[in-house]
Order: sequence, then C-alpha cells, then structure tokens
Amino acid sequence: MTLPLGFRYAAAYAGIRKEQKDDVGLIVADRPANAAAVFTQNVVQAAPVQLCRKHLRSSGGRVSAILINAGNANCATRTGDRAALSSCKAVAKALHTRTEYVLPASTGVIGVELNEDLLVKSIPKLVENLAGGHFAAVAHALMTTDLRVKMASEEAAVRGGTVRIAGMTKGSGMIHPNMATTLGFVMIDADISAVVLREMLARGTERSYNSLTVDGDMSTNDTVVLLASGATGIKPTGQDRQRVSEGVNRVMASLAEQIAADGEGARKLVIVETIGFKSNEDARKVARSIANSPLVKTAIAGSDPNWGRVLAAAGYAGVQFNPAKVDIDLQGVSVCRAGLAVEMDEAALKSKLDEQQVIIRLHLHEGGKSEARFFTCDLTEGYIRINGSYRT
Amino acid sequence: MTLPLGFRYAAAYAGIRKEQKDDVGLIVADRPANAAAVFTQNVVQAAPVQLCRKHLRSSGGRVSAILINAGNANCATRTGDRAALSSCKAVAKALHTRTEYVLPASTGVIGVELNEDLLVKSIPKLVENLAGGHFAAVAHALMTTDLRVKMASEEAAVRGGTVRIAGMTKGSGMIHPNMATTLGFVMIDADISAVVLREMLARGTERSYNSLTVDGDMSTNDTVVLLASGATGIKPTGQDRQRVSEGVNRVMASLAEQIAADGEGARKLVIVETIGFKSNEDARKVARSIANSPLVKTAIAGSDPNWGRVLAAAGYAGVQFNPAKVDIDLQGVSVCRAGLAVEMDEAALKSKLDEQQVIIRLHLHEGGKSEARFFTCDLTEGYIRINGSYRT
Repeated sequence: MTLPLGFRYAAAYAGIRKEQKDDVGLIVADRPANAAAVFTQNVVQAAPVQLCRKHLRSSGGRVSAILINAGNANCATRTGDRAALSSCKAVAKALHTRTEYVLPASTGVIGVELNEDLLVKSIPKLVENLAGGHFAAVAHALMTTDLRVKMASEEAAVRGGTVRIAGMTKGSGMIHPNMATTLGFVMIDADISAVVLREMLARGTERSYNSLTVDGDMSTNDTVVLLASGATGIKPTGQDRQRVSEGVNRVMASLAEQIAADGEGARKLVIVETIGFKSNEDARKVARSIANSPLVKTAIAGSDPNWGRVLAAAGYAGVQFNPAKVDIDLQGVSVCRAGLAVEMDEAALKSKLDEQQVIIRLHLHEGGKSEARFFTCDLTEGYIRINGSYRT
Repeated sequence: MTLPLGFRYAAAYAGIRKEQKDDVGLIVADRPANAAAVFTQNVVQAAPVQLCRKHLRSSGGRVSAILINAGNANCATRTGDRAALSSCKAVAKALHTRTEYVLPASTGVIGVELNEDLLVKSIPKLVENLAGGHFAAVAHALMTTDLRVKMASEEAAVRGGTVRIAGMTKGSGMIHPNMATTLGFVMIDADISAVVLREMLARGTERSYNSLTVDGDMSTNDTVVLLASGATGIKPTGQDRQRVSEGVNRVMASLAEQIAADGEGARKLVIVETIGFKSNEDARKVARSIANSPLVKTAIAGSDPNWGRVLAAAGYAGVQFNPAKVDIDLQGVSVCRAGLAVEMDEAALKSKLDEQQVIIRLHLHEGGKSEARFFTCDLTEGYIRINGSYRT
C-alpha cells in the first residue's frame, strides 16, 4: 500500500461491540480536504447519514475528519441524532476544527441505542494515536461480519510527480446496488475541487459499489466518501486528471470486488458480464438480475452449470430481448448458443466452476455495443448461518 | 376434498424424470370447459406457455384437457415447440377433441431436450386411467422439489344447489410475484363464461400467486388455469357469482399459502401484513420488499426478532414514508413503535418466533386505509442444499 500524503488514521476499542476488537476509527486530513460523498437511497436513513449530508452542505464539501464506529448502526434510535452530533463536536474540539468539517459513519445493528458516552470517550485516545501508518488499523476497525480486511491503492504518474490514491471499505451482507454500498473511504493527495471529486466519485461508484450485490438488501447506513488532501500541491488537469480518475475507478472496483469475494458465506467471487446490449441501462439491469438470483448463486455454490437459471434471470430483468439470440458462457466455456444448449464436457466444466472466481457472460446479440459488469458471490449455507443469528 | 363435477384426472410415470414417480398428469373436462389462464411475465417463455396462449386465443377460451409433465420445463430446447404440439395432438386424438382445446404445461429443468416420445407414449395410459377420483394423483405428479402435495377445495351454496371448487398446485422455488406462479389448476362445476372467469382469475391471482415469494426468481413456465365445466347446470349471477368468486379466492389463497409453507428448505410460513397505506400498490410494494429480503428471512429462520431488518427492507421498497411513524409487530408483539425500539421480553418473543407460522405486521400510519398481505417462508440452509445440486 502506498498511502496518500496529508492524512492520518487511528483505531481503538470503545466497547460498542461486545467482542474486544477495535470498533472506532478516525480518518483525519491535516488541513481540511475537499470531499464528495454518496449515501444509501433507503427511505430509512441512519442518523450519521443525515448528519453527513447536513455537514457537507454547510461546509461546501470540506472535511477535516471522519469518525467511524462499527457494532451499532445508530439507526432508528431515540438518541441517534444527539450521539452523531455530540461525537462530531468532540472530534472538532480535539482537532481544533469546525463541527461541520467532521463526518460521522456507523455500521452494525439497527434499532439499538448507541452509547454516546462510549463513542465520545474514545476520541482523545483516537486523536492521541493518529499516524499516517494506521490506515490498516482503521480498515480493520470497520469490519462487522467481514472476514477479510479490504484495502486498495494506486499511483498515478502526472506532471509534477505522483498522485497516490488509497481506499478502505467494509461490507459483506445487506449489500445492493442503487447507491454507495456500506462504508467506503478513498483518499487522494492531489488538489482537486469538490465539484470535480463529485464527478470522479459518480463514475467510480457506477462501476464498483453500484455494480455489486450480495443479497439484494439495501442498508440504512451506506456511505462512500472521496477526499482530496492537496498535500502534494499537484492540481491535475486534462489528461492528468483523467489518470487520477482512472486510478480512483480501479481502487473502487477493487474494493467492490473484495466485498463480493467476502460476501457473507461466500466461497466464490462471481463476475457477471453482459454484452451486446442497446443501452448501458439494459445491460446493467440484466447483469444485476443474474447477479441477484438466488437460484443462479446457489447453482454456482454447487458448481452446477445450470445456465437455464441464468437465462431465466435475464428474462425477468425487465428488458425486452429475443431469447433465441442469447449466448451464455460459463468460465469461458460455451454452454448456450442462440438460446439452446451446447454439447459440453460437463465434468470438466464442473471442475472449472470449483475455482474461486466464476465468470458468467451473457451476449444478447441485439446489435448494441453496450455492456456491464457486476460483482456478486455464490450463496451458501454460510450466509444463512451468519444471518440467522447476527443479533443474538 | 369435494370435487367439482364434470372433470376426470389421471397420472402416470412416463420416464421423464429419473426417479420412478409419476411425472405426467392429465386433467380432462367431460365437455369442453370455459377457461381463463395467466402466465409468467418472463421474457423467456417455455414452449408450452407459448402454445397455451395460442390455443386459448384460437379456441376463444375453451379447454377439453390439460396435459402436464414434471421433470423437464421444455424451455430453451430445439424440439420444444414440436414436443408441446405433438403431445397436444395426441391428447386431442385420444379424447376426440380439437388440438386447440388441449393445453400443455411443463415444469422442471430448463435447456434439456424433452423426450417427445416418452410424453406421447404415456397418453394412452393416462386416458385409460381417467377417473373423477384421481385428482390427488395428478397433484402428486406435478411435484418437483415440493415436499407436500398442495390441494384445496371449497363449496359455495347458491340458488339451485352447490358449486364445487377444487384446485391443485405445485411449486416451492423459483417463485416470485408479478404473474401466476408455477403451475396451478382450479376447477369449478358451475357454468361461467370465459370472460367472467378471467375477472375471477385476476382477482384470485392478485391475493394468492401474485402475493407470494419464495426466492424472488421468476420462472419461465408459470401457468395458472381456471376451468368451469358447467356440469351442475348452475349459472351463478349477482350475489351467487360473488360467492363463487370468493370461493375461488379462498382456494387460490390456500394454494399460495401451501406453496410458501413448502418453500424450498422452509421451516416456517411467513405472512407479511402491511397496513395504513395510501394505495394498495404501495402496500403491496412494501409487503413484497419485506417478504423478499434474505436478511428478514434468515432472521425468521433463526427466530431473531431483528425488526431493524424489516424497517430497512420497507425503506428500499420504492415507497416514500416517514420512518418515525412506523409500527412493527412480530407475532402480535409490539417491537417497534414510531420507528423506535419497544422494551420487550426477548426470550418470550424468540419462542413465539419458533412457531410454524410467523406474522410480521407493519403499520405505516400514513393516514391511508390500504393494506396488503404477502406469503413467504424463512430462508434456511435447506434452500441452499436443494438448489446447489438440483440439476445433477
């Protein structure tokens, strides 16, 4: 990991989750960073999501710090607004910055009061431990049912030097496209305005968090923030800005892939590719429908080349097409041509489907050039075990 | 079961499925019955679905027989259209009726050629065994991953005597509203026109098959047919017709409930009730979203009163509402009032959630009187086991 300049990090155990494992994290920009953010589109929005929106509006997209806690979503709670605000105030005071420059983010169980005191009391310890190298510690503190820590970084060579991009994320269930998904934080050390960051984030989100589904459930807390510290003094323009934007895309796509691969109970990363569509929207609808299908996902879990389920899931995506033109490949092996079965060595394909990464490709042959790529995972008994007893 | 007059039934083993268990069924009306049908809305439609539509169009809604096979969906196959047509022709010939008076219905795996000969060869045996009392034998022959046979009947007392209504259905996975779901056949012995039957079927479907979800997957083969033999000579009108229509609703609702209770891997029937909405459509959207949520369904499997997941699923249904007005009850126990947690005896509620039927009730308090009722089941390891290895 090469880390962007101008940021420091800290994690600690505040006692919010039962297990004694870091449950709070702080990301600090040495000087207020420019910022863009995307949030859940759920009607039910957690208190921290609401406060983030408010703070970004009043600061005009300036952020000094992000305070994150795991173990409690601070959603549908009596004291939620107060807890979110008082913890931001405490961070602002400790860092000598403005309250609206602090963003709160929470993940965990819904409908249980978040103990405000635990959160506020952890802040001095967090501020004390701030260090450039504690990036991974925060990525660990975010984790709830995640089994693996999720981080990615890129460098972009531009005029005047190198721009570093690094991101961390969490999430493995309650994940569904239509918005930023779960928590994600991406830092850049170039000087980029909030307006340009918003464009970069929109593009990056489209092909990462919005192209990702684990179980079709959409959280109340999803938040993805993109921060630019400007610490390198580099102001990328033209081609250079494009390079930075592509770096952001790659970091975000990697984070999304890591989430899918770590989907609750998942043994396999599944990549759904749809091609030959007349519009991106149609290609995305069909890819999402296949990626969301429990029947497709259980078939992949069982290494069963049951392409009929892929075709059926495409058929209920809400996109009109001619089934008699559809080709389907599994792991690069042709299993369906022009809507019909292809003779294949099923035993050989089954063992290819045992691999950790499975690619489902559907070609519509509707004369279009639009395509989409969705990330998901197989659906196993593990998902049920994890979610049947999450709260208790 | 009281069975309607004017129908005979037969089932046999044709060798379409490996397991030696009846896999074909025939429903025959002694004289051509009036009929209405609803089908899958999937873009990918199996050959029998396409032929059913065609036959109903050319016959003007008259049906002499329905030929059903399990073990093969006859979808995405080279010989599908021919197999469907030739088997209808063979039935028509054996019964001395017209080919367009015969409807085909198939359920099973997609993309594998249906052996036309096996199907056609089974027809003489089916015709030979036709009997009024073989209703349940056909209901058994329909079953694929179903563990329980699904039948329901009602009587309606009307002027001139009694009208009998009986239905059978199959299905436990790949079930999702938006249309008729899986296969269902409902027989009536009154004389009712095809036009009136269509209205009755639309109403009945709305509160049964279209209010049912197991896994959110929509099949390529779903077919529900309503037949009226007229064998009693009773032509119900006014209040009497209303009574028959209500009988059809009850039969269909019972069939849908039986499907949900027998959902693949299900241990519990889950009924989602949404009330206090401004429109039926909104009430249905929210009920469906809750009923489809894997996180809600795994929580019910684990008897976990995790109402936050119910609230979150309501929140992404695409309906605007104020979360601070929402009440949620589980098994009649208040767990959320005005969007906030209610103190409760969690151990007592957990044991209530161990029951075989779980009722989730969400009251929106948006001043409306619209409500909806959805049937689903819990999501258990069994679903994964069944679907990870269905084909192989």
